[in-house]
Amino acid sequence: MLDKFKDECGVFGIKPHHEAANMTYLGLYALQHRGQESAGIVASDHGYLTCHKQMGLVADVFSEEALARLPGDAAIGHVRYSTAGASLLANAQPILINCHHGQIAMAHNGNLVNAGEVRRRLEGIGSIFNSNSDTEVILHLIAKSKKKTIEEAVIEALSQVKGAYSCVFITKDKLIAVRDPHGFRPLVMGTLGESIAFASETCAFDLIGANYEREIEPGEMMVVNELGMRRSSRPFKEKPARQCIFEHIYFARPDGIMFGESTLAYRERLGAKLAEESPVEADMVVPVPDSGVTAAIGYSNLSKIPFAFGLIRNHYVGRTFIEPKQSIRHFGVKVKLNPVKSLIKGKRVLLVDDSLVRGTTSRKIIKMLRAGGATEVHMRITAPPTTHPCFYGINTPTRKELIASSHTVEEIRKYIEADSLEYISLQGMLDCLENSNPDNYCHACFSGEYIIGFPGQDKESMEV
Amino acid sequence: MLDKFKDECGVFGIKPHHEAANMTYLGLYALQHRGQESAGIVASDHGYLTCHKQMGLVADVFSEEALARLPGDAAIGHVRYSTAGASLLANAQPILINCHHGQIAMAHNGNLVNAGEVRRRLEGIGSIFNSNSDTEVILHLIAKSKKKTIEEAVIEALSQVKGAYSCVFITKDKLIAVRDPHGFRPLVMGTLGESIAFASETCAFDLIGANYEREIEPGEMMVVNELGMRRSSRPFKEKPARQCIFEHIYFARPDGIMFGESTLAYRERLGAKLAEESPVEADMVVPVPDSGVTAAIGYSNLSKIPFAFGLIRNHYVGRTFIEPKQSIRHFGVKVKLNPVKSLIKGKRVLLVDDSLVRGTTSRKIIKMLRAGGATEVHMRITAPPTTHPCFYGINTPTRKELIASSHTVEEIRKYIEADSLEYISLQGMLDCLENSNPDNYCHACFSGEYIIGFPGQDKESMEV
Amino acid sequence: MLDKFKDECGVFGIKPHHEAANMTYLGLYALQHRGQESAGIVASDHGYLTCHKQMGLVADVFSEEALARLPGDAAIGHVRYSTAGASLLANAQPILINCHHGQIAMAHNGNLVNAGEVRRRLEGIGSIFNSNSDTEVILHLIAKSKKKTIEEAVIEALSQVKGAYSCVFITKDKLIAVRDPHGFRPLVMGTLGESIAFASETCAFDLIGANYEREIEPGEMMVVNELGMRRSSRPFKEKPARQCIFEHIYFARPDGIMFGESTLAYRERLGAKLAEESPVEADMVVPVPDSGVTAAIGYSNLSKIPFAFGLIRNHYVGRTFIEPKQSIRHFGVKVKLNPVKSLIKGKRVLLVDDSLVRGTTSRKIIKMLRAGGATEVHMRITAPPTTHPCFYGINTPTRKELIASSHTVEEIRKYIEADSLEYISLQGMLDCLENSNPDNYCHACFSGEYIIGFPGQDKESMEV
Amino acid sequence: MLDKFKDECGVFGIKPHHEAANMTYLGLYALQHRGQESAGIVASDHGYLTCHKQMGLVADVFSEEALARLPGDAAIGHVRYSTAGASLLANAQPILINCHHGQIAMAHNGNLVNAGEVRRRLEGIGSIFNSNSDTEVILHLIAKSKKKTIEEAVIEALSQVKGAYSCVFITKDKLIAVRDPHGFRPLVMGTLGESIAFASETCAFDLIGANYEREIEPGEMMVVNELGMRRSSRPFKEKPARQCIFEHIYFARPDGIMFGESTLAYRERLGAKLAEESPVEADMVVPVPDSGVTAAIGYSNLSKIPFAFGLIRNHYVGRTFIEPKQSIRHFGVKVKLNPVKSLIKGKRVLLVDDSLVRGTTSRKIIKMLRAGGATEVHMRITAPPTTHPCFYGINTPTRKELIASSHTVEEIRKYIEADSLEYISLQGMLDCLENSNPDNYCHACFSGEYIIGFPGQDKESMEV
Repeated sequence: MLDKFKDECGVFGIKPHHEAANMTYLGLYALQHRGQESAGIVASDHGYLTCHKQMGLVADVFSEEALARLPGDAAIGHVRYSTAGASLLANAQPILINCHHGQIAMAHNGNLVNAGEVRRRLEGIGSIFNSNSDTEVILHLIAKSKKKTIEEAVIEALSQVKGAYSCVFITKDKLIAVRDPHGFRPLVMGTLGESIAFASETCAFDLIGANYEREIEPGEMMVVNELGMRRSSRPFKEKPARQCIFEHIYFARPDGIMFGESTLAYRERLGAKLAEESPVEADMVVPVPDSGVTAAIGYSNLSKIPFAFGLIRNHYVGRTFIEPKQSIRHFGVKVKLNPVKSLIKGKRVLLVDDSLVRGTTSRKIIKMLRAGGATEVHMRITAPPTTHPCFYGINTPTRKELIASSHTVEEIRKYIEADSLEYISLQGMLDCLENSNPDNYCHACFSGEYIIGFPGQDKESMEV
Repeated sequence: MLDKFKDECGVFGIKPHHEAANMTYLGLYALQHRGQESAGIVASDHGYLTCHKQMGLVADVFSEEALARLPGDAAIGHVRYSTAGASLLANAQPILINCHHGQIAMAHNGNLVNAGEVRRRLEGIGSIFNSNSDTEVILHLIAKSKKKTIEEAVIEALSQVKGAYSCVFITKDKLIAVRDPHGFRPLVMGTLGESIAFASETCAFDLIGANYEREIEPGEMMVVNELGMRRSSRPFKEKPARQCIFEHIYFARPDGIMFGESTLAYRERLGAKLAEESPVEADMVVPVPDSGVTAAIGYSNLSKIPFAFGLIRNHYVGRTFIEPKQSIRHFGVKVKLNPVKSLIKGKRVLLVDDSLVRGTTSRKIIKMLRAGGATEVHMRITAPPTTHPCFYGINTPTRKELIASSHTVEEIRKYIEADSLEYISLQGMLDCLENSNPDNYCHACFSGEYIIGFPGQDKESMEV
Repeated sequence: MLDKFKDECGVFGIKPHHEAANMTYLGLYALQHRGQESAGIVASDHGYLTCHKQMGLVADVFSEEALARLPGDAAIGHVRYSTAGASLLANAQPILINCHHGQIAMAHNGNLVNAGEVRRRLEGIGSIFNSNSDTEVILHLIAKSKKKTIEEAVIEALSQVKGAYSCVFITKDKLIAVRDPHGFRPLVMGTLGESIAFASETCAFDLIGANYEREIEPGEMMVVNELGMRRSSRPFKEKPARQCIFEHIYFARPDGIMFGESTLAYRERLGAKLAEESPVEADMVVPVPDSGVTAAIGYSNLSKIPFAFGLIRNHYVGRTFIEPKQSIRHFGVKVKLNPVKSLIKGKRVLLVDDSLVRGTTSRKIIKMLRAGGATEVHMRITAPPTTHPCFYGINTPTRKELIASSHTVEEIRKYIEADSLEYISLQGMLDCLENSNPDNYCHACFSGEYIIGFPGQDKESMEV
Repeated sequence: MLDKFKDECGVFGIKPHHEAANMTYLGLYALQHRGQESAGIVASDHGYLTCHKQMGLVADVFSEEALARLPGDAAIGHVRYSTAGASLLANAQPILINCHHGQIAMAHNGNLVNAGEVRRRLEGIGSIFNSNSDTEVILHLIAKSKKKTIEEAVIEALSQVKGAYSCVFITKDKLIAVRDPHGFRPLVMGTLGESIAFASETCAFDLIGANYEREIEPGEMMVVNELGMRRSSRPFKEKPARQCIFEHIYFARPDGIMFGESTLAYRERLGAKLAEESPVEADMVVPVPDSGVTAAIGYSNLSKIPFAFGLIRNHYVGRTFIEPKQSIRHFGVKVKLNPVKSLIKGKRVLLVDDSLVRGTTSRKIIKMLRAGGATEVHMRITAPPTTHPCFYGINTPTRKELIASSHTVEEIRKYIEADSLEYISLQGMLDCLENSNPDNYCHACFSGEYIIGFPGQDKESMEV
């Protein structure tokens, strides 16, 4: 019984550092936006690996006691978010196993497209799986490998899988970072004194005071050995880079450098480009906080329409909000956002958001703005229409749920009850890249161009 | 052994409503920014009051089960923050007592100045106190009152205390809202169908879909009786209004109306006024998020210096962050804020914040900006220097800890290592009020003009 | 709204001892059988009292951390059981208050008969109550007292109440033990080096290695002062002693000395006396474990009928046993006891228990024995018929629920389906006392002779 | 890194029953004495297996909610105790896996002697292990089996292991019970209406009201199929039975039938035999409660020395008892047992216990009795000297820790400071069996006759 599922993650690793688990804890803290469902750390101390992982936020999973039980001079960590069906502790990472190579643990960001097939093959020859995670497939392949060294076993295992993996491994004496040949997901390297650190995003380095050095390149494997020396190699067949454009648009924290671009600057350019592509007369540019803020500033700067915080976000919203039973419905958005009526009353609002997935949230926000007195609401999206699901590490719904996969922009506009609706063009989006090559990006969620296909068993996600 | 302590709070009440506890839960949710340490609700059902309160956020304190155990058609609620010493469940509110008037519960925002004296008098005649809370003093006075009705007892009790109280009471058949004659703290009234609701701020009404009607005025008492009818009275001797200007500047949520002013519009005017009063050449206006954002927009709009989100806030910061032991120190700010280096590198930054209390945080932020490459950092504060503690319901440190009580602006500038530092003028701050009379405001924290003095036992807070 | 309720408790106190809280923890451990619902300790350290109490068993309430937060050289502790209605943390003890005498805490075993009247009087003059506990009434009276010293205030307070109290008080520099003039409940004194300890039973001394010295006598007050010196006084009007015979029969741990008698030896004599009073032909004497064991040995020794453990008790039964919904009912007894079928099959069983309250449990046990193959079941009870509730500190149900208050022995025999049923006679029970005067005992639960009456408001408990 | 470890367990299974999980919960409740560290249930509902297991007692692990999440008409359960090193949730049972045969779960009582070798072989071909449990080895062998049916796969797997296993398996449609050819550990079968149940001991049937039918015989496999029909087979090569004599002496609950013997009757005979073999003059026979009680009655009956409960056990001792730091030491026994001084003072005590392992506890008890006034203490043990560890399912320490492996009886007597010490003879112990053949018992712990040897890697346990 194999559930298909997709998850978003953040990874971190460091070696050697006399407070390796503490540094990893901080790194995960900074990467918390990449996954809020589970967190875990595996630390290596004198040849012995210890694991602590739980459902919950980093701050809840790790007490001072828990960190004290993770001694050692090397550690890796992981934060994870997944769709509800697969939200189990068994799927939390890092996954630590014992095999004839000894102890090895892995923290993985990305999804494989052939995990199902490999898993069925392994089960056929007697392997036992404990999770639904793609990651476990890789670990089984490592355990099966007859190669002499763990590096060779890791290479042999990864050579058999297809898909997205930016991952870190830890063994009794090594720390290994690998990024798949297409480089779908980010992975960066930094240094802190003698220590070498890896992370999904540079903000993790900012917090621990490490210096961002460079990206782990697509197809690169970096090994930090028992002496703390690093060695880079490119063990896989070279393939065209396909970095995730959606990290830039939405997923990454704005205060970092990714794929060579400043995320914040890119988002500001997206806003400006959108103002250029689809201007409209309005009294104020209002962002959907927090993700639309930077683009809205860009739009405002170019259009000269004043920027205004017309929607206030309640940052105390927890995961366990209880909807009242009868009287009031659809609190989803209302609990999180509230319009500033005194500001928007009688005004024409230009609303900027980073994406429009199902349309239901936008519809509610626009209703809210009109109830608050806005006379017109024009919506601008800093991404092209999301028509296809991601199979490479971002949680997007099935095509059936993606409103743009089966509706025209005009139909969507009507549904969300906007006075106008415009998306940035695919070309416009790519044109905003300044320091990186547009050809090196994956935009399958907008274009449907899946360079490595998608999981065979997951036809359902692709039905419209 | 009587600890002096001060706390910030939010209150809510509703009657009649068939989901009174659920509405109160939502109201508290919206008021969460006024207190994150404890939350509680008392509901009244067929003449019997039930209480549920705990340490923690509203979302954590109330499960669906907990709310189900709070039936009834009337309820009051409370959220609270206090200084560490007094963070006890015993001080959580509402406080529910049994006395010869029957059951009565109270939720109170504000601090009294004569609580200590009254308490000593009551203890002298044998009263037992279970908390350090001013609120308990009021309840003891009610229990002591020989008046026939609870309203009369409440009036008699409140006539004996001096200080700030915006509060709601609930009894087996009545809901009572009262604001002290000076009206230090806010209290508003709204309607939702047949229901009458009271709250510290209008955002609570926005969430439950209630209409904001008007403020409870300084010295006003509003009783909602067993029939759901309301009756206003002014049982206390009239006194000059002294509404808290600091609510406008910092404490209140920006998306509301308070004391007749739009909070967001006022803050934007503060920013503009500051730009007028103390201009400087800079490349970008950067707010300290989230509270400095609106003022920064005002500053940017008037000065034409571009607005930029140069500091990114990590919203996943929990209460339990564990500082690493040895290697890195002073994480306080670093965990919460991170500069966008690609943006500020080589730039002159105009940094806007709403207040400067001890100076330590500003010092760290400026250090962070310089480390990120800013060539100049000019700090602008949208409040005058905070020279005096508040005794009327805002948590401010003692004079000794307030850097402005003993240092000149130039000395503070040197301490925080800014290239320039300017505060808005007291007059400028008052001039920004548009719909309300400046004479009706308390600004003791800036001017030292304590209209009703301060607690006799608390000389310590006033020593420099 | 004043609930009437009764509770069983154990108390402990020690001073001076450099590990006072730890010793109290051990003392409560040994007294756990007197109350399993809540546990608490108040310790006094350099003039400051600290309290820790919670619902739960001693071992669950006190962690090493919790004990570490209770420093000081004097402490008192309490364990409590009560009927469900009043099982609230608010009723847990010790109760610690602040009043004009300073901090004072109290741990109380017993129930008052005039608590309701005193409470109504105090509420009438404005006192606020936080619990349903009789103990709070005493503390209010102390707080009201104008006497100069705490000892005088305690005496004045206790002079106003009527009922059972064996209690310990702790203040910033004193430890006080008092037993009411009738001495309903036990209270003993011991020494451990320089330390003086008080406890409900001597088993607490055995565990900490203290020497049992003597009982605190009815009407005696013992004060241990700031120098660790003790001083005995008899501040109350003398009254006839009325020690609880039921402590001997059932409630006390068998391994102690109480009211001058060895509990175990007394119970063995009860069994022998019963064998003498009501012999019967049987194949084996089977106790209802654990409380019937000693009496069964006495019965067996005198009657020469072999003793056998025909019922096995499952000691792992927790508080939270979940009854299966449909298939099987009445697990109450079955989960706790199981007959040894191979032993009782075809045998005539003489079943010994210490009391028969509602009859439902006995009925189930006898059914169980017959299902296990017993050919006859003769029941013998080592107490007279329980016809009246206790108001002096033992939890007995109302008269309506006491089967013996309205049914003859023969009717009860039929109900429990025994072949014969006999109780020990009142005189027989008293004759078994060897070292104490039968006139000094209260046996109201068997005789209805309530020397100080019962609570006025509690007529209900006395209706048949 | 393979830890060797041994554990004690209880198992239960039932099918078909519409409340299968509830019945299993009750069964585990009755078997709680076989393991208090973890508990778990796997239930099968319409072809899907669900698992719930946790560290803790049955009553703590299963809430009503937890049981409600275990629907289905078949279930198995497990309770477990192990040495500290291996007390991990990962080792808790049942273990549920997914493999090419589908879902299968197993609950296992016993230890294998070749688990280490099989595991190393499996790891060598790439299998991943998640626990230190022998049980996982069996599940891997099942997953590896190419046999068509699960029964065949189970048989193939068990044919490859050597050691003790009384176990139950559950699949989407079957319930399987198997006992190894030597039958080291017990396993019984009962019926409840249409339902067939398996359990480690008959007391589980008593609680759910099932009828004990017979033992699963050594080497027998019983399958309950999708129609609820059972089918017995003997798939393994026949071997001599070697049932555990120590279950009779100590481990089993006294109220059951095991290996055809009444446990309680056997223990009473052991006491009588001991009185015959090694009489002594004494004033009372005192058992070490609870396990020594029945044998003490047997000793008393034969010797005519009166039986007395001279040691009282505190049944409220929790797992988390905190030892006071400085003043008092060695609380281990004192917290659990207290002598009745009034009873033993001046008396010659004949102390009966079921075994003497390290000698430290006996030494403390005897010291306690002498401190309580006993003039002589004669110790009698109802087992022969324990000279060898068990490798077949009972937790015994290494030879080094077993005092009898390197000391004479006289040396042990001196160590425990008894006036005399006698063990029952090996022959005497076997002679007490009434309904079963002495040749069919394993007594390796007394005789060192390990019929199937012991784990190759565990030489350490055998060093003296």
